[in-house]
Amino acid sequence: MSDKGTANQGNNLDPWYDHYAARTSGLTASEVRALFAVASRPEVVSLAGGMPYVSALPRDLVVGAMDRVMRERGAVALQYGSGQGVPALREQILEVMALEGISGSADDVVVTTGSQHALELFSKLFIDPGDIVLAEGPSYVTAMVIFNSFQADVDHVPMDEHGLIPQALREHIARLKAEGRRVKFLYTVPSFHNPAGVTLSWERRLEILEIARQNDILVLEDNPYGLLYFGDRAPDAMRSVESEGVVYLGTFSKTLAPGFRVGWALAPHAIREKLILANEAAVLSPSSFSQLVISQYLSDADWQGQIDTFRGVYRERKETMLAALGEYLPELSWTNPNGGFYVWLTLPERLDSKAMLPRAVKELVAYTPGTAFYADGGGRQNIRLSFCYPTPEQIRVGIRRLATVINGELDLLDTFAGTGSLNPVRPGRTYPNPPSDLR
Amino acid sequence: MSDKGTANQGNNLDPWYDHYAARTSGLTASEVRALFAVASRPEVVSLAGGMPYVSALPRDLVVGAMDRVMRERGAVALQYGSGQGVPALREQILEVMALEGISGSADDVVVTTGSQHALELFSKLFIDPGDIVLAEGPSYVTAMVIFNSFQADVDHVPMDEHGLIPQALREHIARLKAEGRRVKFLYTVPSFHNPAGVTLSWERRLEILEIARQNDILVLEDNPYGLLYFGDRAPDAMRSVESEGVVYLGTFSKTLAPGFRVGWALAPHAIREKLILANEAAVLSPSSFSQLVISQYLSDADWQGQIDTFRGVYRERKETMLAALGEYLPELSWTNPNGGFYVWLTLPERLDSKAMLPRAVKELVAYTPGTAFYADGGGRQNIRLSFCYPTPEQIRVGIRRLATVINGELDLLDTFAGTGSLNPVRPGRTYPNPPSDLR
Repeated sequence: MSDKGTANQGNNLDPWYDHYAARTSGLTASEVRALFAVASRPEVVSLAGGMPYVSALPRDLVVGAMDRVMRERGAVALQYGSGQGVPALREQILEVMALEGISGSADDVVVTTGSQHALELFSKLFIDPGDIVLAEGPSYVTAMVIFNSFQADVDHVPMDEHGLIPQALREHIARLKAEGRRVKFLYTVPSFHNPAGVTLSWERRLEILEIARQNDILVLEDNPYGLLYFGDRAPDAMRSVESEGVVYLGTFSKTLAPGFRVGWALAPHAIREKLILANEAAVLSPSSFSQLVISQYLSDADWQGQIDTFRGVYRERKETMLAALGEYLPELSWTNPNGGFYVWLTLPERLDSKAMLPRAVKELVAYTPGTAFYADGGGRQNIRLSFCYPTPEQIRVGIRRLATVINGELDLLDTFAGTGSLNPVRPGRTYPNPPSDLR
Repeated sequence: MSDKGTANQGNNLDPWYDHYAARTSGLTASEVRALFAVASRPEVVSLAGGMPYVSALPRDLVVGAMDRVMRERGAVALQYGSGQGVPALREQILEVMALEGISGSADDVVVTTGSQHALELFSKLFIDPGDIVLAEGPSYVTAMVIFNSFQADVDHVPMDEHGLIPQALREHIARLKAEGRRVKFLYTVPSFHNPAGVTLSWERRLEILEIARQNDILVLEDNPYGLLYFGDRAPDAMRSVESEGVVYLGTFSKTLAPGFRVGWALAPHAIREKLILANEAAVLSPSSFSQLVISQYLSDADWQGQIDTFRGVYRERKETMLAALGEYLPELSWTNPNGGFYVWLTLPERLDSKAMLPRAVKELVAYTPGTAFYADGGGRQNIRLSFCYPTPEQIRVGIRRLATVINGELDLLDTFAGTGSLNPVRPGRTYPNPPSDLR
């Protein structure tokens, strides 16, 4: 089984070892996953996860929507639905997307079990083993887990403070084509990027769409955070100017609550048809109950006002985090996101974010090492800091603890300078530097 | 694109035609899917779908569980959960499975978005293109859609009134191995089979497990209907006697409600670990809200009493259907299920269930033609009749209409005997007869 990778290592007691599909070699526990267990201890301040602050959602609004759904449409809510999703909700999803410049037909919306499942279904439809998926470097960790699980190779295109760099995209595509690789699609989070916290400028959106068109590459635009802006809105979605070349993913997980698992894809007609078939095969239909409750909530509640409340919560937390970074770690650099959940921190060159993590947890602060967001070993000099879930006070405590860890590491390096006793790099493996243009 | 099949036919206007993965050739609309649209017209009596009769579920019990969840654990219900599922629910799932003789650890349970999604995840983990999946003939239609979507070939093993025939299983495995095919697993619905309505005897369960062991074949035991027995219980689950060689699938869709989309897999430890990773990649976590509501319902309500109520509802409907068949179609044969949702009807040899369907819908009755349940074109002489959703009165009307259609077809055949003008078989395609041992 020479094509089996790390997923099967150490499992020689598994009697079904030889039965797994070749694609399971791409299915390994993410670094974020292991962190969730560590960070759940109450004494640890977690700046690691991406959990929205659902406590800011008025409970009675949700309960009211549920009661009304069960009273008026209980038999529908409890039943199987269609593989495409509830028609009324798909109409309301058009209203949500209109806020970012998108016009489309409810007929081209497919409701999924979170936008994560749209990513999975899309990948199942498009990825053959050995295909290339282009993605920002860094990129969303669980998207890369999916791409790998269908045996794609992720090629990271660098970003700067204005997002993905068009010229770098051109060069990557040219090199990959010259190598005879099949580039299937570009996966991008253009607004308030996870993990980098940057936003793709309007001019670059147009330029990247043009590059994709020229090269016959589909664009998979993933936009979970677009409505969570802190000052100016993000530029309109890429889907707003290009309907045939873009599959757009949205979700209620960040603007309402992830516990319902409701997201969606807006896709060109032929792709939409296949997404429905894949959705039906995978889950028969997304949850009728969840869809009807969200539809009722959107009908009855001031949902745009609620998103505005979320914006205020996250803006305050981001400002707290940046102030704490300025106070405790003034010598480092970080991104200043205009929305979303994440700050991307760059460490001094001598430090390794992955090796440092256990020491951070010992100091009762958790973060996600940058390596989680690269398929190629990059990111060792970076850390993703989440400000979405911890309170401002916890954020200040967490950054203070992180400073203690970082400064302690630097002191140790100074003390042992030249002895090579810290963070030994294993022979035979290289750790590429993260792109220097991402700060 | 010679490896592309029917999914892409006629889509030459799709600009992404050349971009789909090879596996999309297995992704085609099922016959059942098209039927759902037809059967949804109110004047049609549908004996086609598999929708449980959720109106038999007391609405206040569900509303009470929801209110309590939101009041006491709202922040958890609205949040992301773990990829394995809520621990308390996994413990309760053990109690459900204990009713069919299964003992296991909650640590080996993985909660999924309906048991359908467990089928998808399992298939993703195990199927390489060209693998063989053994399944009963006929078999559950959307399981076969999944197997095909991962490019497996389904090999149907015949059944009789006691379920899958062990000697036929032995012969099929021997033939496939002689042909150099890789047989990955046996997919089986041993209790109250969909669509055949038969139940695998206890002796055969043991014999089939032994055959699987001898041949290094995993058993995927799908048991959505086991607790919906009408007289005697079904024999204990296959998983009750074999824990290392069986992956067991269960669901709350039939005993509670499908609208929540909550099912589960119970798997050997190493497989369970991979199922969790695949689940996380696909949906991050199953719905926290749905899981907590079901957990609360199982804690607060007399859920076994409620299942008993469902048993009574479905038993009455089955008896009504069999009585109507005896009255209106006495010359035909059908299965007499001791539980579940379905009767499998065998038509006179001259009739074709698929060709007859449009005429049935014209007479305002819908059914599922047997061909939907075969990967190889079999089933033309069979019909699946569902008694789960229509009322007893509707069932009588539906069977009376069906008799009108069938007798009209036979009259026509008698009139045009020898002219070959009805149901012409297209040249170049063969339609295998359904197995004669299934009645």
